[in-house]
Amino acid sequence: RAASTAAVAIATGLLIAAATPRAEPFPSRLKTRAAQVRERALSDDTAYETLRSLTTEVGPRSAGSEGDRRAVAWALARLKALGFQNVHAEAVKVPHWIRGEARAQITAPWPQTLVTAALGGSVAAPPEGIEAEIVAATTIGELQKLPADQVKGRIVFYTRRMERTRDTSGYGKAVAERSRGAIAAGKLGAVAVVIRSAGTSVSRVAHTGGMHYEKDGVRIPALAISNTDADMVERQLAAGPPVRLRIFNSSRMADSTMSANVIGEIPGQGARGEIVLLAAHLDSWDLGTGAHNDGAGIAIVTAAARLAGEAHPRRTLRVVLYANEEFGTSGSRAYAGAHAGEIPHHVMGVESDLGAFEVWGMSSRVPQERVPLARALHAELEPLGFPYLGNEAEGGSDIDTLAGLGMPMFDLETDARAYFDLHHTAEDTFDRVDPRLLRQNVAAYAMLVYLAAATDADFGRLPPGK
Amino acid sequence: RAASTAAVAIATGLLIAAATPRAEPFPSRLKTRAAQVRERALSDDTAYETLRSLTTEVGPRSAGSEGDRRAVAWALARLKALGFQNVHAEAVKVPHWIRGEARAQITAPWPQTLVTAALGGSVAAPPEGIEAEIVAATTIGELQKLPADQVKGRIVFYTRRMERTRDTSGYGKAVAERSRGAIAAGKLGAVAVVIRSAGTSVSRVAHTGGMHYEKDGVRIPALAISNTDADMVERQLAAGPPVRLRIFNSSRMADSTMSANVIGEIPGQGARGEIVLLAAHLDSWDLGTGAHNDGAGIAIVTAAARLAGEAHPRRTLRVVLYANEEFGTSGSRAYAGAHAGEIPHHVMGVESDLGAFEVWGMSSRVPQERVPLARALHAELEPLGFPYLGNEAEGGSDIDTLAGLGMPMFDLETDARAYFDLHHTAEDTFDRVDPRLLRQNVAAYAMLVYLAAATDADFGRLPPGK
Repeated sequence: RAASTAAVAIATGLLIAAATPRAEPFPSRLKTRAAQVRERALSDDTAYETLRSLTTEVGPRSAGSEGDRRAVAWALARLKALGFQNVHAEAVKVPHWIRGEARAQITAPWPQTLVTAALGGSVAAPPEGIEAEIVAATTIGELQKLPADQVKGRIVFYTRRMERTRDTSGYGKAVAERSRGAIAAGKLGAVAVVIRSAGTSVSRVAHTGGMHYEKDGVRIPALAISNTDADMVERQLAAGPPVRLRIFNSSRMADSTMSANVIGEIPGQGARGEIVLLAAHLDSWDLGTGAHNDGAGIAIVTAAARLAGEAHPRRTLRVVLYANEEFGTSGSRAYAGAHAGEIPHHVMGVESDLGAFEVWGMSSRVPQERVPLARALHAELEPLGFPYLGNEAEGGSDIDTLAGLGMPMFDLETDARAYFDLHHTAEDTFDRVDPRLLRQNVAAYAMLVYLAAATDADFGRLPPGK
Repeated sequence: RAASTAAVAIATGLLIAAATPRAEPFPSRLKTRAAQVRERALSDDTAYETLRSLTTEVGPRSAGSEGDRRAVAWALARLKALGFQNVHAEAVKVPHWIRGEARAQITAPWPQTLVTAALGGSVAAPPEGIEAEIVAATTIGELQKLPADQVKGRIVFYTRRMERTRDTSGYGKAVAERSRGAIAAGKLGAVAVVIRSAGTSVSRVAHTGGMHYEKDGVRIPALAISNTDADMVERQLAAGPPVRLRIFNSSRMADSTMSANVIGEIPGQGARGEIVLLAAHLDSWDLGTGAHNDGAGIAIVTAAARLAGEAHPRRTLRVVLYANEEFGTSGSRAYAGAHAGEIPHHVMGVESDLGAFEVWGMSSRVPQERVPLARALHAELEPLGFPYLGNEAEGGSDIDTLAGLGMPMFDLETDARAYFDLHHTAEDTFDRVDPRLLRQNVAAYAMLVYLAAATDADFGRLPPGK
């Protein structure tokens, strides 16, 4: 049997030689089973119940928090209850940032209270707060063009408005000011940074998210305000008189602490040493309950692996629920380190970290000569109604590390317009999850990993650095 | 001219005798002018600019607050700038409730932080907070059916979910628990009340709103939680173990203070003593900037009166921006008292207090024999595309007092589905106002008051008590 040939190939280190594309990667028996997996997925609410449990019983779970510890315990119990084997936690050191309280008010020309949230990683303001005139700039680049005396001693307000796009390009363009805006402003002598949220919500909520400082650079507080409140500041700026802001913020970094990647497997039937990786992250930001980000990912990959496992593929399905994706991808790096010797046996990886919204396309990242295999796999997913987008898959933050070490990967693209309305806000909650779309995601992931784990074709290896 | 006949009739106290319906209440000259008013209104953004100014320069303005005082000054200046005459403030004594801070957390079985807001009028909790098990009841009626020992010492959680309806019936059914729920719970020995918001928002915001106690009754704190958070509490309740809540609240009543009704007129050309009243309220709740409630009303009635006035109707258009509608309609009662002698000359009243959403119908409340006049008036508004709904107009809280004293009135019904998504929340902000729908409202109000003020027909008087 082909399965034993492949197993021997791995055992003897001949993996790459054995990986020549085959004429029939998905024989009819596999196709029939894949269709059965799809049908079961489309009428199964295991994922929805998993998500209900996580958001209700754990809720917010930012790295290093009490919720994070509860999430690890929850995940171990849940994976066991779902029938995974080899369920265990692998320790990961994580940073521990504590939000405290943030407030922001316009004090002149017309006092108004703003809805705000500290960005993850921000230092505190002095206890008496900071009051200063605003200097507005669309982007870091625009800020750097301003005369130095217009920035020094002021609060920088980045006004860039995130574009709502179906793919993640809108976010990609908008995130720089959140991530690095305080570095640029601090160098120019600003006393704090306030950004228009890097998100598209029209609700009156701020989008938080990670930010950082340079190692020995100036550290100034960094807050996000809601899009509604950014409009208010801009209206007051447009009126002419100087606009002054007062901010308070008591967030701080605590000592690093321990969290864990939580892992469970459905061992392969014949090629147990070959791993198809399903990734999601266990941590969330603290404002919502991390329902879409990344509770949905946890729910989707666990349900998908379980359904695919019921069809007994030859390769092992491994679910990794990563620690601390949000504030530095600690779990991803820890996993790559702990499993260094095993990485060549990660034959394919997929990650769910874009919420439970409509899947509108699939892409691959495999060596060029394996693209026909990726296309053949996608052909089996056709009944789910989304196209193959090409071989430019970007992966998610967690599988990125392994892709850089050669692991081929697939992306299932969900509708980012809906996702970035909730992303990193208090509104990332269970009531915003549509069970029908969750099932569509599970079906897509389940078929994808079943076919990848059942075929005896090989996806090859990516060149180093992806 | 008919105008002078009517003026003489008023002067000689023969108003009612002169008010026989006429064969042609709206001669072609009036129809032409009404159409011109409509066309001007549909391309005029005076209302939008008024609303931009109010929300940006004043913002929240709950009765008795600093924002309330700024709103009175703003309104006087704005009415003058818009060309109103006889612009003045009339003192109104208002209650002054101060929000302070409210927090709510589930402490068992699974700790979660809830988004909450104190209801207007709520007393504070003790400084150490209140922690108790929840007892849930859909309504006051259901609570009262429970055994006494299930309520005593507990926090009552009213779970009634407001229905989203195009008219205000959904709100009408849902508001009892907010308004009187603490009275019923307090009598049964409960220590606090938490309600599912009396509003339909799916955002993570709580809907505040007025509540009250009986004069010598028990006073327990009353909070609203967002619909999202109510779902969370219900999920934990559904799991079985007792659900415990901890609440903090520092709201309090301060001494009553002075606010004002702000009034401006466009004097009639010929029948100056006959008043067509346009009502809106100047106060707002404090969480948002009162953009729809009732900044839109202010913007609509001022723009409508101004546009109608440019067509020189014979009767006087009087705009009254009432103090403190939200927490006891103080301004409405003060106006009725201060203008008691003038009430018979209020020939018609209309109020805008349902936001700047699509107008979907018009109703009247006139003596039965004047219904043909109301229908004839509506016929001129046909190009705006909404039907006449009948003679069951309910009025708004502010014109209610005058309607009870005989003043006929018209209602323009706006889409309450959109309104009650924002009503009394932090999301009642300028960015949620659609300038196109604001213009549609202005056009409807402007035509209505122009025709009512230009005709020499009389709308009669309602029986006492409406």
